[in-house]
Amino acid sequence: MSASSAVIARVIRGPITESIHRGHIAVVDHTGRLLHSLGDPQAVTFARSTAKLIQALPVLESGAASDFGFTDAEIALICASHNGEDRHVRAARSILAKAGAEADDLQCGSHYPFHKPTSRQMRQEGEAPTPLHNNCSGKHSGMLSLAAKLGVSTEHYMSPEHPVQRQMLQAVAEMAGLAPEEIPLGVDGCGVPVFGLAIDRLALAYARLGKPDGLSAERADACRRIIAAIRREPSYLAGSDRFDTRLAEATGGRIIGKMGAEGLFAVTVPDEGLGLVLKIEDGAQRALYCAMFEALVQLGLLHTDEMEALAEFREPKVTNWQGTVVGSIQADFKLI
Amino acid sequence: MSASSAVIARVIRGPITESIHRGHIAVVDHTGRLLHSLGDPQAVTFARSTAKLIQALPVLESGAASDFGFTDAEIALICASHNGEDRHVRAARSILAKAGAEADDLQCGSHYPFHKPTSRQMRQEGEAPTPLHNNCSGKHSGMLSLAAKLGVSTEHYMSPEHPVQRQMLQAVAEMAGLAPEEIPLGVDGCGVPVFGLAIDRLALAYARLGKPDGLSAERADACRRIIAAIRREPSYLAGSDRFDTRLAEATGGRIIGKMGAEGLFAVTVPDEGLGLVLKIEDGAQRALYCAMFEALVQLGLLHTDEMEALAEFREPKVTNWQGTVVGSIQADFKLI
Repeated sequence: MSASSAVIARVIRGPITESIHRGHIAVVDHTGRLLHSLGDPQAVTFARSTAKLIQALPVLESGAASDFGFTDAEIALICASHNGEDRHVRAARSILAKAGAEADDLQCGSHYPFHKPTSRQMRQEGEAPTPLHNNCSGKHSGMLSLAAKLGVSTEHYMSPEHPVQRQMLQAVAEMAGLAPEEIPLGVDGCGVPVFGLAIDRLALAYARLGKPDGLSAERADACRRIIAAIRREPSYLAGSDRFDTRLAEATGGRIIGKMGAEGLFAVTVPDEGLGLVLKIEDGAQRALYCAMFEALVQLGLLHTDEMEALAEFREPKVTNWQGTVVGSIQADFKLI
Repeated sequence: MSASSAVIARVIRGPITESIHRGHIAVVDHTGRLLHSLGDPQAVTFARSTAKLIQALPVLESGAASDFGFTDAEIALICASHNGEDRHVRAARSILAKAGAEADDLQCGSHYPFHKPTSRQMRQEGEAPTPLHNNCSGKHSGMLSLAAKLGVSTEHYMSPEHPVQRQMLQAVAEMAGLAPEEIPLGVDGCGVPVFGLAIDRLALAYARLGKPDGLSAERADACRRIIAAIRREPSYLAGSDRFDTRLAEATGGRIIGKMGAEGLFAVTVPDEGLGLVLKIEDGAQRALYCAMFEALVQLGLLHTDEMEALAEFREPKVTNWQGTVVGSIQADFKLI
């Protein structure tokens, strides 16, 4: 992370700014040209769940997706930080069944679904969460399917040395225009390797994902398949009421974006060959979607009806324990 | 909030810094002299729950505390953002009963207890939280007791125009060396007015609270009573496993500190006549206690055995869904 961050959003309460979120933005085209920025477009952080769309490439290129007959919904789920709603759990189970694996093979750990009504109901009924409810269960199921296709053991599939993880690092590196050894690795919230990248490199990967000109035919096909799957099944990329899903729905798939933990968001605009990455320096998710909304507006990428459809994300309200609105979070920056 | 914040802490994952928390620190003595700082010591934010120790003054000065016979534990609870553990709920109920009020008079709203085991048990047993469980129920009970002592209606006790709130604003202003009209007001999470203050002014109020030299005899008595009550009953200031309580316990009450929402912490060191305020610019609590620990160490205020007793707060671990440690939060600043 770079020290030269810029103000991104203000937390307003009554007459004053109570807190400030800073960050970095990089907007690049599919050739890697930096078009706009804020803060330090070369700030390094972990790609976290934004990498999932790139990590899906080997699942397609290996032939696993076609051999096992994954549907659009299942491919979208492999790219997802999903809500743990019933449809997501069913799709994860289906991926595993098609690949000859089981829920017990998932090593991602368990947490209650992100989707509050589902989580509330499970708690009321005393139902414990399983690894299928983990927001990363699609990605992990995809990893198990790749291991099955490669004919390798799944026992240590989360290890950086495992063939599945090597292929994923290779794909991320290629899409970001780097060598694998240039990418520092950490451990993600779900236990697998996570990729340290400058945000302009991650933006390049997203620009290429949407406009794979000049990539190999096999890679370009896989990119197009991922974008097409998410366009057709956006509810599997995140879920009810989630910005990622709503952005793809509101724009008819013209803009596809993916959140990541620690305040990260990556966008591809395939028709424009654009990639955009925003990192909230302090990792706060509460400033993420209003800032993304503002960036897309400043870039002229959202039509009026799309802005209306996404209006609830524009200025999140701050409420107190009584439910009264006492403030809001307001994006406050100008892309250069 | 000022734009000239300084790096306070880094969120480390594997080999890199994934996120950064910035902020401001002011250290002043009871005469208002700035001794040390970081970022902008005049950065303005809301005092939030750090104001509770100052807001307790009118409850004592009015004679409400002595007339109603509040115990040390009850006075500490009036200053608290408590855990909602059984003893906290009992103490809030006792304050109300002594003042002739009821739980139904509390307008703070309800939330599940901060104390996770208590909250978990209530959820399992289908027990809904009440206003008594609200972390601010002590402060609100104190407000109702002040209204009773003043002989005024409690119906609109949260309104800025209510005599209770006017007295509290007056006390905060006096302790901070300001006129009431210099203090912008917002609405707190519990519905009552909240005070906009530069952090060096809040630090002055805390320094004076601990060393009330030159204040009126009545004010000085009230200050000493508050400090004595918290020293004798630190578990009522926050609760099990909470930094505020543990800091007072570990130092035998030599250092008393109070957290506030949006990444705020205020400390008084009565014997030294010192006040210290830290604001995490982005409002994150996760960086708050490690940064306070580091500031106290740099100021030479923590003995070796106290550092050991508080060691768990020094570098909070970042864990993944499997419970594996994958990083940590590290304070990274040097007080000037």
